[in-house]
Amino acid sequence: MSDAPTACLLIIGDEILSGRTQDSNLHYIGQRLAAMGITLKEARIVPDVAAAIAEALNAVRARYTYVFTTGGIGPTHDDITTASVASAFGRNVIRHPEAVRRLVAYYGRQVNEARLKMAEVPDGPGVELIDNRVTAAPGYRIENVFIMAGVPSIARAMFEAAAPSLTRGDPVYSNSVDATVREGDIAAELSAIQDRYPQASIGSYPFMRDGALGTSIVARSTDKAAISAALNEVADMMRAKGAAPMMGELA
Amino acid sequence: MSDAPTACLLIIGDEILSGRTQDSNLHYIGQRLAAMGITLKEARIVPDVAAAIAEALNAVRARYTYVFTTGGIGPTHDDITTASVASAFGRNVIRHPEAVRRLVAYYGRQVNEARLKMAEVPDGPGVELIDNRVTAAPGYRIENVFIMAGVPSIARAMFEAAAPSLTRGDPVYSNSVDATVREGDIAAELSAIQDRYPQASIGSYPFMRDGALGTSIVARSTDKAAISAALNEVADMMRAKGAAPMMGELA
Repeated sequence: MSDAPTACLLIIGDEILSGRTQDSNLHYIGQRLAAMGITLKEARIVPDVAAAIAEALNAVRARYTYVFTTGGIGPTHDDITTASVASAFGRNVIRHPEAVRRLVAYYGRQVNEARLKMAEVPDGPGVELIDNRVTAAPGYRIENVFIMAGVPSIARAMFEAAAPSLTRGDPVYSNSVDATVREGDIAAELSAIQDRYPQASIGSYPFMRDGALGTSIVARSTDKAAISAALNEVADMMRAKGAAPMMGELA
Repeated sequence: MSDAPTACLLIIGDEILSGRTQDSNLHYIGQRLAAMGITLKEARIVPDVAAAIAEALNAVRARYTYVFTTGGIGPTHDDITTASVASAFGRNVIRHPEAVRRLVAYYGRQVNEARLKMAEVPDGPGVELIDNRVTAAPGYRIENVFIMAGVPSIARAMFEAAAPSLTRGDPVYSNSVDATVREGDIAAELSAIQDRYPQASIGSYPFMRDGALGTSIVARSTDKAAISAALNEVADMMRAKGAAPMMGELA
């Protein structure tokens, strides 16, 4: 898995940091990237401040195979992502002719200067539009960075439009086994199982359900057989503790 | 607001980046910090990898007044936050006597080596336990960094236990006005209103409700009168466009 492509998600928006809006794009993009064998190594959430966006973008685009950004590409004054991205790349902002064409076709007589701001991209090479089948205003790719909308339905549409262009790794599978047993009562045995299956990453997540404390053990790996073998050992160990483990389905 | 204390949230956990678990701590902590006049300037999500945790922690603790971490302080092998924090501070890990006492009191005969791992903290000065009224195992503060659990109910309890020790700024208030008008149709007027109220931060957030496209305009400021005046201008402007704006409540 060490040769797998890597990614970072840069979530842009005051409304996420203020707690007004619950981000849901990380959840979707994290799952999709895992299925494509691309390791999401980090996510950062930054405010609508040009210097903060540009600094974070330059830090992560040098470090990961791909960077995805969400938010800040709408028509209003607080949408400053493209200006910030252009600044990070040391480029000017231009209107992309094909993006203008799409906006004019979609909005007709209601096109105006604010909406045409959504046709702006950084100047120079390596810029390609990302289709938006929801509201026409495109995202774009610049080198290894994918600029997408923050509205979840549009972010998803843009991610899926960009997905075929991404280099994939071996897909990462996962499965889980849950039981009403407490983490602290299985920790030693679980650690020994992890040691026997270094090709799987085993995580332990406590939960409370119907008033009972339980633990969900999740194994993730590119090796389906290792997941199955490791989780069978976990289930046997849970049964030996008197619990009734429930195995999930490999995904 | 430029003198307000600042903060960063460091969310630790493979399960967030893989999309398995939806983080909800950012949402809570973001709202609480805003109410306390502490500006959440950034959040980072990192995997259960010691080097990644230590590097991110050292980057952000030098930069912000406070850093809050969530996740990775349980009893299992994948809980590596304390080891990583100690490494970031160049310190050893020890068992905190008072934390041991609390765990023994809570777990009784069920205390074991795995559970006593939850009494570990970095050695040296500036370390104070953070109470956990849910499951006894404490978090801790080390200098300007607050180490908290990932389970939301426990993260909240620990945040509230730590909150009285934080230096507060002027509380940031917010209110919103919503209407079924599209962002692109009000962007120019909205930008002019923002220019007239530099002491407020005005954000525009599109939504779809019952099939109709609308926009929520949010004003945030330490100055309640500025929020009210700016949003009244927004509402008047929306009415002039034929919409029926709904004002929220100042919070």
